[in-house]
Amino acid sequence: MATITFITGGARSGKSCFAQRLAENQSEKPIYLATARIWDEDFAQRVKRHQDDRNERWQTVEEEKELSKHDFSGETVLLDCITLWLTNYFHDSGYQLNNALDAAKAEWKKFVEQEINLIVVSNELGMGVHPENEMARKFADLQGWMNQFIAAQADTVYLMVSGIDIKIK
Amino acid sequence: MATITFITGGARSGKSCFAQRLAENQSEKPIYLATARIWDEDFAQRVKRHQDDRNERWQTVEEEKELSKHDFSGETVLLDCITLWLTNYFHDSGYQLNNALDAAKAEWKKFVEQEINLIVVSNELGMGVHPENEMARKFADLQGWMNQFIAAQADTVYLMVSGIDIKIK
Amino acid sequence: MATITFITGGARSGKSCFAQRLAENQSEKPIYLATARIWDEDFAQRVKRHQDDRNERWQTVEEEKELSKHDFSGETVLLDCITLWLTNYFHDSGYQLNNALDAAKAEWKKFVEQEINLIVVSNELGMGVHPENEMARKFADLQGWMNQFIAAQADTVYLMVSGIDIKIK
Repeated sequence: MATITFITGGARSGKSCFAQRLAENQSEKPIYLATARIWDEDFAQRVKRHQDDRNERWQTVEEEKELSKHDFSGETVLLDCITLWLTNYFHDSGYQLNNALDAAKAEWKKFVEQEINLIVVSNELGMGVHPENEMARKFADLQGWMNQFIAAQADTVYLMVSGIDIKIK
Repeated sequence: MATITFITGGARSGKSCFAQRLAENQSEKPIYLATARIWDEDFAQRVKRHQDDRNERWQTVEEEKELSKHDFSGETVLLDCITLWLTNYFHDSGYQLNNALDAAKAEWKKFVEQEINLIVVSNELGMGVHPENEMARKFADLQGWMNQFIAAQADTVYLMVSGIDIKIK
Repeated sequence: MATITFITGGARSGKSCFAQRLAENQSEKPIYLATARIWDEDFAQRVKRHQDDRNERWQTVEEEKELSKHDFSGETVLLDCITLWLTNYFHDSGYQLNNALDAAKAEWKKFVEQEINLIVVSNELGMGVHPENEMARKFADLQGWMNQFIAAQADTVYLMVSGIDIKIK
């Protein structure tokens, strides 16, 4: 089974930065597992820029959905992030909340059977006013349920607030 | 006076689930105090489904607003949730923030004079971008002020994040 | 250099109230540094009302942007709040995120060179669903990055939830 460190928090709370420092402290050669689907050229450049920001110790693997098809046994893997990965399941399910959740959970279970040192970044989306947009509400439900599912399995959980890591498990 | 455990957090953060476990640990026969107003048939079915989810040890009492008219002395009561209860005050006040807040506080004071072991679920609504919709902003104010009011009286307060209970008082 | 206490949290989480108690405990004559731009008469009255709420020990200084032009050496200063101060930079930059952030950071660096006991109130805006409005998204980024910048320099950081202060640094 994977050893899981789960890092959640708001947008611009310093999650990815903290996660990268953690991975670099735990491994000489960490793997950056990027889950973003490249929707357009702008996005492709943003991804490229982030990749250039990481130092040469990092290896980048891009995987939109099927995390478990890669063999990372024995490695330190930074998965960034659950929100983008879930977005792909939500989109491909035709925005069916339960189908997306079931498919994501099934894939996740297969993935964490590997012996990896896994650092996972996600987002807190539920502490604002409930969105008027129904699809946004559904996605927030999907995100919240998946966060609970992963955090329950995690060995260590951090909440990021204003760049500060708060260990909550 | 009631002994109060206040549980707050974002949507889908595991508040109700944690609160139910807590109540079942503290009482053989907890009371579920449901504050939802039944707006339509869909909602009625959702409430029924939740009721079926709770085991036979639970007794359910439905009360939209007047919590204090029920005698719960000596019981363990799970109030789920403050947000729906406030929504009823907000609606019935014609969306007048101060009137709704005053009426809810007055009712609350009467309610907690009883000797009950009270577990209260609420929501954090203020950590997103300020809503453009004025009524949403007003309701977030109402919720925030009532949360402060109850948390100040509470013996124990938990913040839920990704299903993890963080004891903050 | 300033000694910095950073207080963040959601709307209506009791930040300003906690900050005022802190300042009154730390100084006989605290200074209230108000950063609100007076956009209209309603707002002017709200500011006046808040000023009347503070007791006679307080001195109020209004400064929309150039914090560093005031000499507060040796004083206890409550800056309320970063969000309104950033709003002024964001507006005056023509809503250019990077320009606003650079200008605000430069001003902040000059300001905290003074030997002051500084208590700073800000807001968490990033834990709701990502806003559909692009300008709101940009402002949330600006706020999040500035929060990280200040919290990293702060000696003490509190997160407010439902009126409860959680010391996180």
